[in-house]
Amino acid sequence: MTDAPHGDATLGGQDDAGGAVALARDLIRCPSVTPDDGCAIDVLADVLRRMGFTVTPLPFGEGSTRTPNLFARLGTTHPHVCFAGHTDVVPVGEGAWSSDPFAAQVREGILYGRGACDMKGGIAAFVAAVRSHLARHQGAPGGSISLLITGDEEGPATNGTVRVLQWMHEHAQIPDFCVVGEPTNPQTMGEVIKIGRRGSLNATISVNGVQGHVAYPHRADNPVHRLLAILHELTASPLDAGSDWFEPSSLQVTSIDVGNMATNVIPATARARLNIRFNDLHSGADLAGWIRTVCARHAPGAEVSVNISGESFLTQPTAGVEALRQAVADVTGHVPRLDTGGGTSDARFISRYCPVAEFGLVGASMHKVDEHVAVADLMQLTRIYDSFLERLMG
Amino acid sequence: MTDAPHGDATLGGQDDAGGAVALARDLIRCPSVTPDDGCAIDVLADVLRRMGFTVTPLPFGEGSTRTPNLFARLGTTHPHVCFAGHTDVVPVGEGAWSSDPFAAQVREGILYGRGACDMKGGIAAFVAAVRSHLARHQGAPGGSISLLITGDEEGPATNGTVRVLQWMHEHAQIPDFCVVGEPTNPQTMGEVIKIGRRGSLNATISVNGVQGHVAYPHRADNPVHRLLAILHELTASPLDAGSDWFEPSSLQVTSIDVGNMATNVIPATARARLNIRFNDLHSGADLAGWIRTVCARHAPGAEVSVNISGESFLTQPTAGVEALRQAVADVTGHVPRLDTGGGTSDARFISRYCPVAEFGLVGASMHKVDEHVAVADLMQLTRIYDSFLERLMG
Ligand SMILES: [Zn+2]
Ligand SMILES: [Zn+2]
Repeated sequence: MTDAPHGDATLGGQDDAGGAVALARDLIRCPSVTPDDGCAIDVLADVLRRMGFTVTPLPFGEGSTRTPNLFARLGTTHPHVCFAGHTDVVPVGEGAWSSDPFAAQVREGILYGRGACDMKGGIAAFVAAVRSHLARHQGAPGGSISLLITGDEEGPATNGTVRVLQWMHEHAQIPDFCVVGEPTNPQTMGEVIKIGRRGSLNATISVNGVQGHVAYPHRADNPVHRLLAILHELTASPLDAGSDWFEPSSLQVTSIDVGNMATNVIPATARARLNIRFNDLHSGADLAGWIRTVCARHAPGAEVSVNISGESFLTQPTAGVEALRQAVADVTGHVPRLDTGGGTSDARFISRYCPVAEFGLVGASMHKVDEHVAVADLMQLTRIYDSFLERLMG
Repeated sequence: MTDAPHGDATLGGQDDAGGAVALARDLIRCPSVTPDDGCAIDVLADVLRRMGFTVTPLPFGEGSTRTPNLFARLGTTHPHVCFAGHTDVVPVGEGAWSSDPFAAQVREGILYGRGACDMKGGIAAFVAAVRSHLARHQGAPGGSISLLITGDEEGPATNGTVRVLQWMHEHAQIPDFCVVGEPTNPQTMGEVIKIGRRGSLNATISVNGVQGHVAYPHRADNPVHRLLAILHELTASPLDAGSDWFEPSSLQVTSIDVGNMATNVIPATARARLNIRFNDLHSGADLAGWIRTVCARHAPGAEVSVNISGESFLTQPTAGVEALRQAVADVTGHVPRLDTGGGTSDARFISRYCPVAEFGLVGASMHKVDEHVAVADLMQLTRIYDSFLERLMG
């Protein structure tokens, strides 16, 4: 447990300004594999309280679905900048770790442990950045700083960020800008800021025809041919050519299944499954409507089921994003790419309330055995968040 | 056993001219379910010898594959007209017959029994027609008449008609025209003469791609999309619009199988099967080449396997067909349709050596429980064959 920076022989003489490394190690030592919290949220709450934050624990759900969360805010004025993250981690996995995944060992400048980059390291860097900011501004920032922390990002995410945002909305705590501290850099610090995500949709199409003998096709109705016509139309042209901040949307047929072993029989039914990753030129509902229309044209009785896993979202690169970009460029020397690729995070929920961008550590080892983060990266991220806060409310 | 016409009280006073009904009953009473011959070929050989035919038994194959066959010829001059047929029958099947399938009962003008229409009835009608012809011409036809009979048409057909035709070719016994006595009429006598058959081809196409996550399609290579492009091109246009004597060729995709249950994964492989029924505008080899070319264009590494079950064939409607058609029209009052539809028969083998057409009884009950033929139809077919022989060599 720590609430102040302290030196560490293993850091190779580097200065753990604001205590990012120390806090990251304390958090990793709480084995908070979803849905367990270990002591992680309590450790963090304690640190934030000592820094002057008003901390509101926000557990939601009952029994086995009970999820620890917290909202912490320092100051009441605007601009209100929020940091969002999660203290839960994925399981240690099947492989053998070179050291205990919850020991938080530092070896040759590398901090090892489950959650090191995803994303206890990110939380620790933000807390350390706030500490530096407050030290520079005599404890009074030129606005307010908050943290939205959940213990259920890697799980069903039902009683986590979504519920905290509802609470924040009801209590007039919605920030002006939010940074999510997920690991966004593929290989080195400063590569990528995420300002949106594609949406995702799954569809299943079942076509019923009339079984028959291949020698008499006019007496049958081949559902495979109707399904082929549907899938050809759905895949004939790209959905779009991409937009300002998004790659082109992509439709992938993931399976077609008929299961007819008889070479001389036209089958009775044919099924296909597809997934669409779509950008801000589409909505899930529009795409579902399009799929149903195409199916109806080629196979009037087709059964179509569509599941929209998430809509696309985009934060236009205005003031908050620009401050984050300049902070990254200043500290790392790289102008980061503004990106909208990859999978999902809680940013999709936050985007419904306020502008949100994601920037954190290098994610190459996330969810893997020997998850780790370079101590130097942790310190660099601290300076980036510090610079970002300075630009927005200095 | 019989070698001469005789009356039968159950025929309702009709005259069994030439003994077609009696011979059909004698043949049905030999339980010659493939590969057993019962006594069928011996009964027939005995009848033909007494009529003056030179009968050559032609068993081919050894042990369990031994197949009884015969070639019988009367006369040595041209025109040489041949009748081809089989004495073997399919099993009696699962259902209950209203009388013993090998008892050859006649009830209310209907002869019941396995092989009644397919095709012991047809053989008996031809023998009876020859008897009438010989009676009219004092035992000396104006050409020669032969019979090509196999005991293995319903089975693998390896040691049957194919081998007998080789023997006939080697012994200069190839006829000028051949009639196959299979049941060609769907409902009533006089409907259809078959003058050809479509070919049939089966193909299997396997496309290997590169598995990946649907969120990163550019890092994967979706084999389903390549397979869709192949199948779209193969099915985009009709193969042809039909020819003088054939319906349009037909390509039916009978199955597509991927078996990928993960909605977020682009699969590694995709497979399809198809069948083509093709007319005389195509050869199996041309179609196989076309399939391979289309596959190579959309999926260079695709594995394509093609099995040509049979080529199409056509007998142009020249003298022999015309004589048969006029005989049918004269006797039945219907001008028969010249047709090339339906399944396969030994005519596909005969067509390699000489012109061949098929005309026989009504086939509605063939291969079914209570297979039967109307005694009146048997007598009518006898008169048709008699008229046909008269036209060609009278
Ligand atoms: Zn995460
Ligand atoms: Zn037959």
